[in-house]
Amino acid sequence: MGESTAFRSVHFQGHSVVLLDQTRLPEAVVFIELHTIEDVYQAIREMRVRGAPAIGIAAAYGLWLGMRGQPGAADLDAALDRHVRYLANARPTAVNLEWALQRMRRNWMATHGQERSVRFAALIEEARAIEQEDEVANRVIGEHLADLIKEGMGILTHCNAGALATSRYGTALAGFYVAKERGVNFRVFADETRPVLQGARLTAWELMHAGVDVTLICDNMAAAVMSQGKVQAVMVGADRIATNGDVANKIGTHGVAVLARHFGIPVYVAAPTSTVDLGIADGTLIPIEERKAEEVVVFNGRRVAPEDVNVYNPAFDVTPHQLITAIVTENGVFYPPIDLRQVLVG
Amino acid sequence: MGESTAFRSVHFQGHSVVLLDQTRLPEAVVFIELHTIEDVYQAIREMRVRGAPAIGIAAAYGLWLGMRGQPGAADLDAALDRHVRYLANARPTAVNLEWALQRMRRNWMATHGQERSVRFAALIEEARAIEQEDEVANRVIGEHLADLIKEGMGILTHCNAGALATSRYGTALAGFYVAKERGVNFRVFADETRPVLQGARLTAWELMHAGVDVTLICDNMAAAVMSQGKVQAVMVGADRIATNGDVANKIGTHGVAVLARHFGIPVYVAAPTSTVDLGIADGTLIPIEERKAEEVVVFNGRRVAPEDVNVYNPAFDVTPHQLITAIVTENGVFYPPIDLRQVLVG
Repeated sequence: MGESTAFRSVHFQGHSVVLLDQTRLPEAVVFIELHTIEDVYQAIREMRVRGAPAIGIAAAYGLWLGMRGQPGAADLDAALDRHVRYLANARPTAVNLEWALQRMRRNWMATHGQERSVRFAALIEEARAIEQEDEVANRVIGEHLADLIKEGMGILTHCNAGALATSRYGTALAGFYVAKERGVNFRVFADETRPVLQGARLTAWELMHAGVDVTLICDNMAAAVMSQGKVQAVMVGADRIATNGDVANKIGTHGVAVLARHFGIPVYVAAPTSTVDLGIADGTLIPIEERKAEEVVVFNGRRVAPEDVNVYNPAFDVTPHQLITAIVTENGVFYPPIDLRQVLVG
Repeated sequence: MGESTAFRSVHFQGHSVVLLDQTRLPEAVVFIELHTIEDVYQAIREMRVRGAPAIGIAAAYGLWLGMRGQPGAADLDAALDRHVRYLANARPTAVNLEWALQRMRRNWMATHGQERSVRFAALIEEARAIEQEDEVANRVIGEHLADLIKEGMGILTHCNAGALATSRYGTALAGFYVAKERGVNFRVFADETRPVLQGARLTAWELMHAGVDVTLICDNMAAAVMSQGKVQAVMVGADRIATNGDVANKIGTHGVAVLARHFGIPVYVAAPTSTVDLGIADGTLIPIEERKAEEVVVFNGRRVAPEDVNVYNPAFDVTPHQLITAIVTENGVFYPPIDLRQVLVG
């Protein structure tokens, strides 16, 4: 594996969460240490850590930091609930955040009545387990995806569902690392992914470091490369998968899926089962985060649009399940009709 | 009409071509004076003037500047041919450039044998005629498009086919100005149009100045706004229309047209007849300009992608005629099956 899959974009060390600050890439590789739950909340909000699984892992550790910061033993359960609510609000769309926090909460409740030190030790172990299980899941997802990557193929991806977005390997990008290990020759087209440019800044960076053949394009060039026959598959991640199979993912994914359908190209959505939300019937019910206009109209301190222009800046969109060829999780490759309950148990 | 349709993005004054430098918008409204044919060539290449009709007008004046710069009367015809070839190479995709230059050449040949001063006067008059006819054509295109804009509609446009891209009014945007005059309420979604951001920098700017309700989105948000039912029509310009009705236009247009088809939204391509190229059978034969990687990977002096990343940066794409609802020229609104020869004569 290349060095880019060996680093940890979110990790726990000593008593701190250590993050590879994704807002600084590709210009600088800067790790930052977070010592408080507030630090973690801000880092998630400001997208210093991003990617649905990585956000979940960071939040799990962040919850532990919050509990550790509690002065007295009194009312620890109430404090935990407060911390869970606080972190869950950092970003609304990725369900892994809520999933990780609820899992941490269940762990906490299960140690009720035990000594404080025991409860805290169990809590941090649960966060570590979330991280480790994500790594294992991603590796398996990578094996499944690599089976779909044939010699000479071109694969288009959107945003960054890579090592940077997860514990390791990534989801949509995991197959590239495994296929590379297997000696398969293939080519990746990375959408730059406006407005935050995760494709340009992150996907291109981590794939180049791993020696994967990657070509950067603007989002609006996807139809051109598809029409030229250069793309045989689309592989993207997910921030939340509804019960009917609709997928919330980075803004632009829906458009890519429509184009792929038009050009007869399969669309694979890769995500760990922690991304599945059986509490939501379909994609229309998934909350979509709208972010500030500055992301679109200001770049590197310079305005690229007139003052006071109206801007619509949804961070995610929902791809209807009809446009998705298969959902790939650690439990397998699932083709329609997909029963998400079955996806969860494998 | 708002002030933004009253300015002249390319105009002739004294003995200079006066350009509104489009690389400086929206931060600064800077007019630059071009005194030589080389100045005009560079301004076209550097996209200080852009938009197919505006490029044609600038080149027509530029040709006159080149001829005026000829020291002796000897071999003026050869000089003209040399200048035509020189300017025609400034950018390859928009046919209006070649069209304007050939029209200027025919004018020059028609005055053969006459006095130098007469020939030069006829030549500059021809350039002025090209500019004036473009304005009239755009106004008529605007009337046709405005007939398609109904109360409460949302219209998506891509790149800038506005007053800035033409002599005045624009092509795709001309209907907005006329509909606004008529008191119709409608809403425009402007794709920012990476990598050069003509939508953010130019379309948003000129529509805001004219009081048109415009919302800026990233290119990859088009599917989201369409899926939300906010868009009832797509209106875009063209850089070259092939005999079979295929349309070369700013990169991303093909994708927008595919999305519109998917969501059942009509696509109108607006262009003066100078954009029609009967010398080319279909869109696969239209030369597509590829521009330098820096446009994509450097943003306001800051790198947004790793050093040495592979980049594919086509400036245009070709939308197959099957995805186009109608072509709108000064001669009318043409629905399939479109006979381009008929479009030319009206």
